[in-house]
Amino acid sequence: MTETFEKAASQKYILKDKFNQIRSFSEYLAKPLEVEDYVIQSMPDVSPTKWHLAHTSWFFETFVLESVKKNYKSPFPVYNYLFNSYYVQVGERWTRNRRGLLSRPTVKDVYQYRRYIDEQMNEFFETADENLLKKMKVVLEIGFNHEQQHQELMLTDLKHVFSINPMYPVYVEKEIKFNTDIAEMKWTEFNEELYTAGYDGEDFFYDNEKPVHKTYLNGFKIANRLVTNKEYIEFIEDGGYQNTPLWLSDGFAAVESENWKAPLYWEKVEGEWFNFTLNGFRKVNPAEPVVHVSFYEAEAFAHWSVARLATEFEWERASQNLENVGNFVEQNNFHPVPLHETNGKLSQMFGDVWEWTRSDYAPYPGYKVPEGAIGEYNGKFMSGQTVLRGGSCATSESHIRNTYRNFFYPNQRWQFMGIRLAKDLI
Amino acid sequence: MTETFEKAASQKYILKDKFNQIRSFSEYLAKPLEVEDYVIQSMPDVSPTKWHLAHTSWFFETFVLESVKKNYKSPFPVYNYLFNSYYVQVGERWTRNRRGLLSRPTVKDVYQYRRYIDEQMNEFFETADENLLKKMKVVLEIGFNHEQQHQELMLTDLKHVFSINPMYPVYVEKEIKFNTDIAEMKWTEFNEELYTAGYDGEDFFYDNEKPVHKTYLNGFKIANRLVTNKEYIEFIEDGGYQNTPLWLSDGFAAVESENWKAPLYWEKVEGEWFNFTLNGFRKVNPAEPVVHVSFYEAEAFAHWSVARLATEFEWERASQNLENVGNFVEQNNFHPVPLHETNGKLSQMFGDVWEWTRSDYAPYPGYKVPEGAIGEYNGKFMSGQTVLRGGSCATSESHIRNTYRNFFYPNQRWQFMGIRLAKDLI
Amino acid sequence: MTETFEKAASQKYILKDKFNQIRSFSEYLAKPLEVEDYVIQSMPDVSPTKWHLAHTSWFFETFVLESVKKNYKSPFPVYNYLFNSYYVQVGERWTRNRRGLLSRPTVKDVYQYRRYIDEQMNEFFETADENLLKKMKVVLEIGFNHEQQHQELMLTDLKHVFSINPMYPVYVEKEIKFNTDIAEMKWTEFNEELYTAGYDGEDFFYDNEKPVHKTYLNGFKIANRLVTNKEYIEFIEDGGYQNTPLWLSDGFAAVESENWKAPLYWEKVEGEWFNFTLNGFRKVNPAEPVVHVSFYEAEAFAHWSVARLATEFEWERASQNLENVGNFVEQNNFHPVPLHETNGKLSQMFGDVWEWTRSDYAPYPGYKVPEGAIGEYNGKFMSGQTVLRGGSCATSESHIRNTYRNFFYPNQRWQFMGIRLAKDLI
Amino acid sequence: MTETFEKAASQKYILKDKFNQIRSFSEYLAKPLEVEDYVIQSMPDVSPTKWHLAHTSWFFETFVLESVKKNYKSPFPVYNYLFNSYYVQVGERWTRNRRGLLSRPTVKDVYQYRRYIDEQMNEFFETADENLLKKMKVVLEIGFNHEQQHQELMLTDLKHVFSINPMYPVYVEKEIKFNTDIAEMKWTEFNEELYTAGYDGEDFFYDNEKPVHKTYLNGFKIANRLVTNKEYIEFIEDGGYQNTPLWLSDGFAAVESENWKAPLYWEKVEGEWFNFTLNGFRKVNPAEPVVHVSFYEAEAFAHWSVARLATEFEWERASQNLENVGNFVEQNNFHPVPLHETNGKLSQMFGDVWEWTRSDYAPYPGYKVPEGAIGEYNGKFMSGQTVLRGGSCATSESHIRNTYRNFFYPNQRWQFMGIRLAKDLI
Repeated sequence: MTETFEKAASQKYILKDKFNQIRSFSEYLAKPLEVEDYVIQSMPDVSPTKWHLAHTSWFFETFVLESVKKNYKSPFPVYNYLFNSYYVQVGERWTRNRRGLLSRPTVKDVYQYRRYIDEQMNEFFETADENLLKKMKVVLEIGFNHEQQHQELMLTDLKHVFSINPMYPVYVEKEIKFNTDIAEMKWTEFNEELYTAGYDGEDFFYDNEKPVHKTYLNGFKIANRLVTNKEYIEFIEDGGYQNTPLWLSDGFAAVESENWKAPLYWEKVEGEWFNFTLNGFRKVNPAEPVVHVSFYEAEAFAHWSVARLATEFEWERASQNLENVGNFVEQNNFHPVPLHETNGKLSQMFGDVWEWTRSDYAPYPGYKVPEGAIGEYNGKFMSGQTVLRGGSCATSESHIRNTYRNFFYPNQRWQFMGIRLAKDLI
Repeated sequence: MTETFEKAASQKYILKDKFNQIRSFSEYLAKPLEVEDYVIQSMPDVSPTKWHLAHTSWFFETFVLESVKKNYKSPFPVYNYLFNSYYVQVGERWTRNRRGLLSRPTVKDVYQYRRYIDEQMNEFFETADENLLKKMKVVLEIGFNHEQQHQELMLTDLKHVFSINPMYPVYVEKEIKFNTDIAEMKWTEFNEELYTAGYDGEDFFYDNEKPVHKTYLNGFKIANRLVTNKEYIEFIEDGGYQNTPLWLSDGFAAVESENWKAPLYWEKVEGEWFNFTLNGFRKVNPAEPVVHVSFYEAEAFAHWSVARLATEFEWERASQNLENVGNFVEQNNFHPVPLHETNGKLSQMFGDVWEWTRSDYAPYPGYKVPEGAIGEYNGKFMSGQTVLRGGSCATSESHIRNTYRNFFYPNQRWQFMGIRLAKDLI
Repeated sequence: MTETFEKAASQKYILKDKFNQIRSFSEYLAKPLEVEDYVIQSMPDVSPTKWHLAHTSWFFETFVLESVKKNYKSPFPVYNYLFNSYYVQVGERWTRNRRGLLSRPTVKDVYQYRRYIDEQMNEFFETADENLLKKMKVVLEIGFNHEQQHQELMLTDLKHVFSINPMYPVYVEKEIKFNTDIAEMKWTEFNEELYTAGYDGEDFFYDNEKPVHKTYLNGFKIANRLVTNKEYIEFIEDGGYQNTPLWLSDGFAAVESENWKAPLYWEKVEGEWFNFTLNGFRKVNPAEPVVHVSFYEAEAFAHWSVARLATEFEWERASQNLENVGNFVEQNNFHPVPLHETNGKLSQMFGDVWEWTRSDYAPYPGYKVPEGAIGEYNGKFMSGQTVLRGGSCATSESHIRNTYRNFFYPNQRWQFMGIRLAKDLI
Repeated sequence: MTETFEKAASQKYILKDKFNQIRSFSEYLAKPLEVEDYVIQSMPDVSPTKWHLAHTSWFFETFVLESVKKNYKSPFPVYNYLFNSYYVQVGERWTRNRRGLLSRPTVKDVYQYRRYIDEQMNEFFETADENLLKKMKVVLEIGFNHEQQHQELMLTDLKHVFSINPMYPVYVEKEIKFNTDIAEMKWTEFNEELYTAGYDGEDFFYDNEKPVHKTYLNGFKIANRLVTNKEYIEFIEDGGYQNTPLWLSDGFAAVESENWKAPLYWEKVEGEWFNFTLNGFRKVNPAEPVVHVSFYEAEAFAHWSVARLATEFEWERASQNLENVGNFVEQNNFHPVPLHETNGKLSQMFGDVWEWTRSDYAPYPGYKVPEGAIGEYNGKFMSGQTVLRGGSCATSESHIRNTYRNFFYPNQRWQFMGIRLAKDLI
């Protein structure tokens, strides 16, 4: 065997293994569910689990199988309509907020669909030649990352579905030992510089992390750890939710219209704060990072703390030389965990909670939307949303990097979203 | 054995048999369903099948078991909250329009709940003495009739759930033979009279059928059969839905806001009318009675036909001496059927479709709301709704009688609702 | 002069005088207003005063002038679009809920329009011959009554406009002397009978008061006076608004969605009830009839009082031989007044407040909608509304009679609406 | 007289003159109005003219008179409630969307209020000593600029009020000569640089233009003139509003929910585009800059043009050395005007239309919200809005500068908003 051939063969098996590993991880996450749990859409932002399982299959069918298999005809043509999400160039879609109104296809049907797609994909990996693999590599990698994103959504959506049920179903039982020690909040300083932002490596990246470009950073300092429930409770008890001048105007409007009094999933029971977690309904642990707050709440909290949020480039600079380790989905915590000690080091930058930045989600200088339906992945969302960085306890470790830009509307709270403080350096 | 004892024993077994027969019919109707089908609420008016199955059990638990069993404690206390419908005197309720957001209790849990209630109820029947049975007879009969009402709702709700699914699931396959002969529309005449309305028998009745009272009827004539799809299509094609002066003001507002162009479940495919039925999506049969129209549409159609709807007392008078036979749920049609011949007789008065009357749902003179939570059954709905008479293809034969008053809001269409014409006698 | 000629001439001058008297009364009612007051629409049910003044002119223009004047061309053609209300057969309309968005035509323009129509109408009266007058008499009478109805609306709409202004403008200053004596509540009894209902005289009537028809009345008794604020406060203080079983289901839904805690225009100031009136914001007078309650509140109050509302035919029977006198708009009170003594007589049946009945607004047996646009006056509103009887402190005395049927939705409160109790005779 | 004294005195008279000049310009703009025109609020974004006239007076009363006059008591205390806009630290406010529901205070009352405030302010100017003037200078300047902003809003709000009136009132008659020559679109180029942004002068500025800070600009080129109606019509006729991939996701959602088919105020009459202007309803002039488009439309148009919008810093850099001249409100055009020739120069940067940038409205690095109620002026709006630059035909010339940041939500269109294209320099 020549070296090139070996490399190509190994590349093929790397892709195939990655595909099968990611596909089975989706099903692993759905293991604890009853059939009925797959069906519910508890709010428009939430999709039923069976939708996620089908939609990720539809992605490979549409962007890989239909492209590589001559005369490929889906055996389930209506699925193209039901499980397309927002790719307008790929045809009409079943309206997002009606995803929970479908009893059919059943969960069993959806697993059969997955089986079918998996077989077809494996056949493709086996038979594809080097050129075809090379050509398809980007879309395959998008497919892998896309399914990982939906794995995260499966967890956060299911959490919402369970949370509104007065029977408080438990996703995974877990004993929690309370240790209320909290690492002291310290600050890491960065001097002003002309920073080069954006992804500059050889591996997979999303188009929104490019082009690499220069951006000027004033000096800043950033907290060594996330904001905890203990600190957030102080904010609440100090009347934070009633103190209008702490809030952005749109933020206070949301407080009033949504009647926010605490993070999502918090409830006061006989004078004490409880929160609903994927491990059940339990007392709020003061040492855990606060989670399920909106950008508006993060901003108001920072204002109250006489601090601010970091911009996305400050965050990127600060994490530039850190190892990508943390409390990810692989840890099976499905919830942020306390940090009892930092040793002065910048901690919790990866995993635990997505960190709201003070940056609107906008194109980098020179950004061009890619051609075709895949181009609808990122660019068209570049208005009205806010950047979050760092991944969460529901993110796959292999999915994240320090240039990764997540984005949500500033009023959304159902993702694992939290707060890290920053300040000007003066 | 004394005669009294025998009578009492037979009475006991009549009640017990009726209980078990009705309970098992509910489950018979659910046989064709997949687990996922039990969960969906496709609009606020619709309840998931599993809710119906649980709620009817809750009724016996709350109004029978809790009353007759000393220290009865429900093993499922949260069900009292989840499966109460509108009995405010029995405690708080889970909001109606959120019934489709619950994955738990599962379908299996609900069947277990039914098993438990059935056992407890059978034990009650076995052990109750004559006095207790006598005391409980009314509430038992209400429970039976209540469950029959929910059997009808299970079918109409499921039909709605299936109808919005682009896969058009079929409840029960059935071959339809088209025979487009339609019996000629003839009229039966009734002279003016001082009519005595309301239920005057010895069997079960609802409070809203009482007191028996006098009401003056002018002379009228009533059509011998229901309005057919053929006639309704003529109305549509004559621009009925655009012809404002045919409509009540609130009716035309509904046409505009709901964008009505035909009965519910109708769709035009390549120039031909199709409709969704429990036997699948199929071509509209011109000979079938039109169904799934609102009161407003019934009124406009009658206006267009230079006729009118009958009042509820005209309808009651006309059906006074008819036999209670027709196309009921026991026929397993789950859809109205054509009538090819009337022989001049007043036909289709029972079964097929509920017939909209021109009567608002109001208390009869001297009506008093019964005491206690059971009193919430009928009286509090006596405003804003319209009376329908005669039962439908989803009603149990044993449930209906000619004094029976059904009621819905004038804009509702998802029940099997249709039209019979009447005219003044002059 | 022949007698016929004299009669015709006198008929002509009676009509002309009536026209001019009614037209000027509309302007008399608008005297206390500032220009800005004419423009505001404080909720969709309310129309700006200038709209009322223009719309009533449009009525004479459209249904009289355009019919009798050859080639009549409105000098203000856009007014046909702006000031049509709901006569769909007369063309498109400016949407009702946008009436308050128009600064032009100005108030001055509207008065010019009135001047123009008045001149044209007077010219018509002068020149019309006997035949033409005879032919036009019905539509003229409708025009007069129509303008009287809008005079009432001008007052109730203006009251709403002023009520939401924190400066609480006063329509007419008036000193109120508190006399808290309240006539004892006594009951007048009526035996059962086959009653002949509907208008049977020679003067003007609305189509909805016809045909005269028989209706059977059980024996009943009716309160000699209206319910007072004192009694209504007792209902409130007894928790009436929280006591669900007192309410119709739709009624309690309105209590919750509208957050009702008292009649419209009531406000609690330092523990005491105040209400906004056309004479300003002042303490609630316990002796006055309660006013600005919905049908739902009237029903709940009656239920709490262990009584009920009368049906419209009971009310009509009870008032059959009473003189049509009372506190009408001509008394310039613009508010109901206390009744300190009844002498056992049935009192306050006319004037003060419209009395909610327990009758849905429905066609009388044999009712036919008149042909043409005038036919849209009454018939098309015969669903979803409730009948009120007797006129109010904002009604013209000449407008009312004991067969007169007013109708509003059961949740509406901004008219002068109140309560009289009735009971079964047993 | 010493020089210092002279300077102080002159400073005092400069401020006083500026005050009186700006105050009278507000009233000059209201000259063409009828009383009724002052009252209308045609959508929530719009305030009635009389509200603007009162609110700007309230500003001086609250932030100047109450601060400098010992024991100042407003003779109109309710105005503090009615005419506060969003300064939560100054007390409760009358809800914004209810501004059009108030007939009182009348227009005459509002002018009296203005007279009163003007007298008090002039007295203050006369009697204030140098120290006091110095202390109050910033808030006075904010008051002047604040009133200028409301002058612009008076025009744009009035335009909206008139536009929805089917009588199409004309604010100011003006003859338009069509000259359809359009200057060729050329590009001015700028090389990459580390640019210093923000206001760095000695005169008045808003806090949001500070701090001065460095920002890195890639090379870019910018169009020498604004986009014209001619070009925008080409976009429409090319199906721009149906071509989803051209749009941001939120933008296309707005197209669908708002049913946008053209800029605000455009209407197609018999195949030709007309638009409503302050000079009346007239044919669209192809040579005029397009106006009344949202950010979303600007973005889609730029995408369609294979170009993009400039960032706010690119715009600021490009205008850095230009003279602040253009079609401002002082030109009395009240509408953008065509540009027939550019001579290659960067034109129309000031006046005509506010130019949408590709920058979200965010705080500059180091920005701190000022203390107290005045701090609510800018900072709290820094989320969800987009920056516009350059002023419009409704802006005062003395109000604008090249660092001035205006901001609106990306879906708003009722300001004079337009488009200038930019491109990367490569």
